[in-house]
Amino acid sequence: MAKDYKKLALDMHEEKKGKISVESKVKVENKDDLSIAYTPGVAQPCLEINKNKDDVYKYTSKGNLVAVVSDGSAVLGLGDIGAEASIPVMEGKAILFKEFAGVDSFPICLKTNDVDEIVRTVKLLEPVFGGINLEDISSPRCFEIEEKLKKELDIPVFHDDQHGTAIILAAAIINSVKLIDKKIEDLEIVINGPGAAGMAIAKILLSMNVKNIVLCNLEGALHKDMESLNWAQRDMLPLTNKNNERGLLKDVIKGKDVFIGVSGPNALTKEMVKTMADKPVIMAMANPTPEIMPDEAKEGGAFIVGTGRSDFPNQINNVLAFPGVFRGALDVRASEINEEMKIAAAHAIANTISDDEISPDYILPDAFNKKVVENVAKAVKEAAIKTGVNRI
Amino acid sequence: MAKDYKKLALDMHEEKKGKISVESKVKVENKDDLSIAYTPGVAQPCLEINKNKDDVYKYTSKGNLVAVVSDGSAVLGLGDIGAEASIPVMEGKAILFKEFAGVDSFPICLKTNDVDEIVRTVKLLEPVFGGINLEDISSPRCFEIEEKLKKELDIPVFHDDQHGTAIILAAAIINSVKLIDKKIEDLEIVINGPGAAGMAIAKILLSMNVKNIVLCNLEGALHKDMESLNWAQRDMLPLTNKNNERGLLKDVIKGKDVFIGVSGPNALTKEMVKTMADKPVIMAMANPTPEIMPDEAKEGGAFIVGTGRSDFPNQINNVLAFPGVFRGALDVRASEINEEMKIAAAHAIANTISDDEISPDYILPDAFNKKVVENVAKAVKEAAIKTGVNRI
Repeated sequence: MAKDYKKLALDMHEEKKGKISVESKVKVENKDDLSIAYTPGVAQPCLEINKNKDDVYKYTSKGNLVAVVSDGSAVLGLGDIGAEASIPVMEGKAILFKEFAGVDSFPICLKTNDVDEIVRTVKLLEPVFGGINLEDISSPRCFEIEEKLKKELDIPVFHDDQHGTAIILAAAIINSVKLIDKKIEDLEIVINGPGAAGMAIAKILLSMNVKNIVLCNLEGALHKDMESLNWAQRDMLPLTNKNNERGLLKDVIKGKDVFIGVSGPNALTKEMVKTMADKPVIMAMANPTPEIMPDEAKEGGAFIVGTGRSDFPNQINNVLAFPGVFRGALDVRASEINEEMKIAAAHAIANTISDDEISPDYILPDAFNKKVVENVAKAVKEAAIKTGVNRI
Repeated sequence: MAKDYKKLALDMHEEKKGKISVESKVKVENKDDLSIAYTPGVAQPCLEINKNKDDVYKYTSKGNLVAVVSDGSAVLGLGDIGAEASIPVMEGKAILFKEFAGVDSFPICLKTNDVDEIVRTVKLLEPVFGGINLEDISSPRCFEIEEKLKKELDIPVFHDDQHGTAIILAAAIINSVKLIDKKIEDLEIVINGPGAAGMAIAKILLSMNVKNIVLCNLEGALHKDMESLNWAQRDMLPLTNKNNERGLLKDVIKGKDVFIGVSGPNALTKEMVKTMADKPVIMAMANPTPEIMPDEAKEGGAFIVGTGRSDFPNQINNVLAFPGVFRGALDVRASEINEEMKIAAAHAIANTISDDEISPDYILPDAFNKKVVENVAKAVKEAAIKTGVNRI
């Protein structure tokens, strides 16, 4: 199957020469049209915006326009392939924004890996856009870029690899606990792979009061004496691993309720699953080969298994979150996408499935369930208003 | 009439909330669509581009995508109104690209006036775009920005305020001489207003072997002892004003064949026109009020009068040039838009009207004549191939 998609994708991209087009919302068929859309008429909206900068939302496309910004340094599972080679992904993201949520979106693929230069460039582009979606930027640079942009820009900034994934994972946990008779506050969780997504997942779960999270890399549970840790991982140490556990994944997985993998293929074994607490939940999101295949996890006793793949149940698919998150944020002209808005989005995704419908093989709604974007947008909008970051 | 357009333009811009939308060229309605347009299929074009950077033209929208870049420093007749307030104009330009020539185009309005920062930003954005249209950047910064970008980028860079205007003006001159029984090589021309457009007009006319051009500002004919001259104007001194004329416009206009105004309202009087050579040609392009109104120019003896306005004959309208110029350049993936391509475009515009059709009130084709873009694109393409700057 994978082979077919390779060929089909290449053919489609070549035939269409890319996936986006920029279209006019108005007709320009005669001199009158030209005088209204261009000179001399266009001077009027210009003058109004010059008088009152906020009118840029009234007379231009800004309010519905999101930049998909990448430097191509961590694209899919392909690594640092550069700005040009990242364009098909960013165009893909742009069309998902449009098709799922009616958000106009444009790929901004930058020929630099320098943190400050990326921040400065996005800052200079701010006039045109209503929001910034960061994408496929390597860790820990992505944290720094996002943090700096949040400080400098008046529009929402959202690194989807972090927060999109975290929101959907949180939704999966919200519905999973309903099936395993545990409370979120009591969960003991291992996150394997402390990169961009892993760190954001840890943060959202901490915001949801999860009892204990152990972050793990190939050397085992993160601890302060590990020399390889970056500043972002080091910042998380005081908030995680409450019992100061040490050892490899196979050691710290013992007795845990949930395994969350954002690492690599085959990191988790059937034997390890057997050592987990009752009714273990496995979210194995490495792509295309998960940390453990679902059937193997089940053989080890897993009660719920989710992956990043569409050919297994419970797909952690980012398209469940980012379109609705931005739809909601843009609709109230939010100045940021804060923690409350992300958690609201997670609950909205989870609650799109009723408690009657939930089953171990159905903890997340389908990506093409049209209620998802609607519910997420509404929840994000309400959370923005509740936290006072809305501007209309 | 002008009042109506103000109101109509404001209402339209508010109703539509801007003029551009980004659309998907492919459907995303089910998991298969998603697997082809996004993961996992999208990895294939990424990998191909990573192997061979040129494939970015094969698998992405780059080859048909032009950035309309401005810092909002010289917008229409409004001056330095800033990046936000310039967006309606740049969106307008973007939709004209699409409606007239099928070129996808996106507004890049930058929050900086620093030459090097603008150059660097556009350089960082190069991966996504197949061409750069500079717009409404103040003089002489626009010359420096264009020159630096031409050196640094592999894609064509074209400052429309300069070259678009120059091309159409050249087309007007090409057809005018057919009516006044003079040769281009014999023309004596005054250009009033040595800004971006004026300088570019001088350059294209020099390339077409015009005999003598006198550049003029409010202080009169430019000469080396004028302290107010910028470096770009100073560079033009050795190439212009062959008889070393001094004095105000009213002095140097005497005996000239052509007046070209890119200055301000009422700079030229009926009395001045009377002192010009036989069958004077007046191109009074100040907007909205020309250097001289057509009826007044005619009273002074003008044989041909053109303006920037659509309510008089012979409108110098940039939409005659830039759509076809970029269509042609993109079609052969030209590395630049050189002088030969610009002159070819001018002849193509001029020749869209047959010699039988030409009259003093009809020296330029109508902006909505669909043959213009077709002819210009073809001529530009051929000139690109002839000068070896084509890459397909």
